Amino acid sequence: MHIHSRIADLRAALADRRRIVFVPTMGNLHAGHISLMEQARRHGDTVVASIFVNRLQFGPNEDFDTYPRTFQADCDKLAAAGVDVLFAPSEADLYPEPQEYFVEPPSIQNILDGEFRPGHFRGVATVVSKLFNCVQPQVAIFGKKDYQQLMVLRNMSRQMALPIEIVGGETVRADDGLALSSRNGYLSAAERAEAPRLQRLLAGIRAAIVGGNRDFAALENAAIAELTVNGWKTDYVSVRRQADLAPAGSADNALVVLAASRLGNTRLIDNIEV
Amino acid sequence: MHIHSRIADLRAALADRRRIVFVPTMGNLHAGHISLMEQARRHGDTVVASIFVNRLQFGPNEDFDTYPRTFQADCDKLAAAGVDVLFAPSEADLYPEPQEYFVEPPSIQNILDGEFRPGHFRGVATVVSKLFNCVQPQVAIFGKKDYQQLMVLRNMSRQMALPIEIVGGETVRADDGLALSSRNGYLSAAERAEAPRLQRLLAGIRAAIVGGNRDFAALENAAIAELTVNGWKTDYVSVRRQADLAPAGSADNALVVLAASRLGNTRLIDNIEV
Repeated sequence: MHIHSRIADLRAALADRRRIVFVPTMGNLHAGHISLMEQARRHGDTVVASIFVNRLQFGPNEDFDTYPRTFQADCDKLAAAGVDVLFAPSEADLYPEPQEYFVEPPSIQNILDGEFRPGHFRGVATVVSKLFNCVQPQVAIFGKKDYQQLMVLRNMSRQMALPIEIVGGETVRADDGLALSSRNGYLSAAERAEAPRLQRLLAGIRAAIVGGNRDFAALENAAIAELTVNGWKTDYVSVRRQADLAPAGSADNALVVLAASRLGNTRLIDNIEV
Repeated sequence: MHIHSRIADLRAALADRRRIVFVPTMGNLHAGHISLMEQARRHGDTVVASIFVNRLQFGPNEDFDTYPRTFQADCDKLAAAGVDVLFAPSEADLYPEPQEYFVEPPSIQNILDGEFRPGHFRGVATVVSKLFNCVQPQVAIFGKKDYQQLMVLRNMSRQMALPIEIVGGETVRADDGLALSSRNGYLSAAERAEAPRLQRLLAGIRAAIVGGNRDFAALENAAIAELTVNGWKTDYVSVRRQADLAPAGSADNALVVLAASRLGNTRLIDNIEV
């Protein structure tokens, strides 16, 4: 695996590659990331991963400074997964001057996670645009666990006429159902034992909807109440349309149930398609 | 010259081209545009022009509907200038749905022309980003007559890590000094005779500065007063730093004098580097 930190070196290394598939990450890689790398291999000839903890998408009170950085272990995992090229820029490489031009998503950036993380999706859209301009892939893969992010980037790619196909990767879960996430490492043992409740509740809502229950508000409120009783602080549990993440109406079919809630200081998100 | 209106057709036609030089236009081509095409030839192997009157960069009270559209004559001129490929999308091709993702420039978009044309540079940055994603050039050329536009796009390209060199093209002038512009066609005969005053005043300011006069405000105000006496309505005459278009201080050296003023219903802009 070739590792490049400078944009010019990366471009030179990729100049003659055909059908590049790109998987951007913030490092601290787990089996969910590796699953995306394996999926990438099926979409093209050259698999490029990136590791960059993007300051722009963290709020002032979020965990940018403490976000886990495990570069050497990440490299070993990527090499073992058959990744061809790793782009690992420093902040000075990707933001040599303060970023002043932004890719601004529409109002979808202010709902769900965006309501609780102002500026987050603008930061994501901007850094992904820059990474796309560095790597110039034909395909890019993003995990469905960050469902709203996948939606924002898919819409951005289409609206900005990017020559890039955006592919969603399935969420990988622990045996007890917890979605794998770098932030799971923040959980205490007791919190880790409690954490799978989020996925169980989402699965329960799905089962209720499939069974004919269309009282989405009641389903959402019951889940929030059970989380609260068990020590969670919930940002949202919400039944939405897959197409645009607008609140689901009783006639809508392709749905997704999304949730974000905190256990102690750790914010977990998850979702399930219906 | 090959002409394509659809993005997919354009991409297929350019897939094997090396060193693409791109010159975006809004059509109604004059000798200033053709000069850019000739300059383009010196920067690469394949010269691609585009013609697209971009609704996004026009304000609600501006001349989008009446902007001169002269497609057949434009094609003849581009072919004669040796342009290889013309990209001429319809609005349905470039905006198949309402544009909701924007490239947002920083505060430079709100000064000078931006103060009088809210949203203009956002519209320019967004459409040029999309055109870049369609054409994927190595070099792009923009005329210096739209000096602030050139600055915004050069900064955007650098800040967004676009793999595109932005080149400025010299302004082409009529024998009496008037900068060539599609909007000159709006002028009555009397206005056309008056119009070169703008350039004469800018040249006078430059001569004064070169001669040691650093009282920029007095120079600006004298020019505005002479324009007003002669029937112009002036948006600005301003001495700025070339680097960032900030107001020039007495210690600054690389300067540019920019002006925008109206004769009747026609808004003319011009500038001169010092």
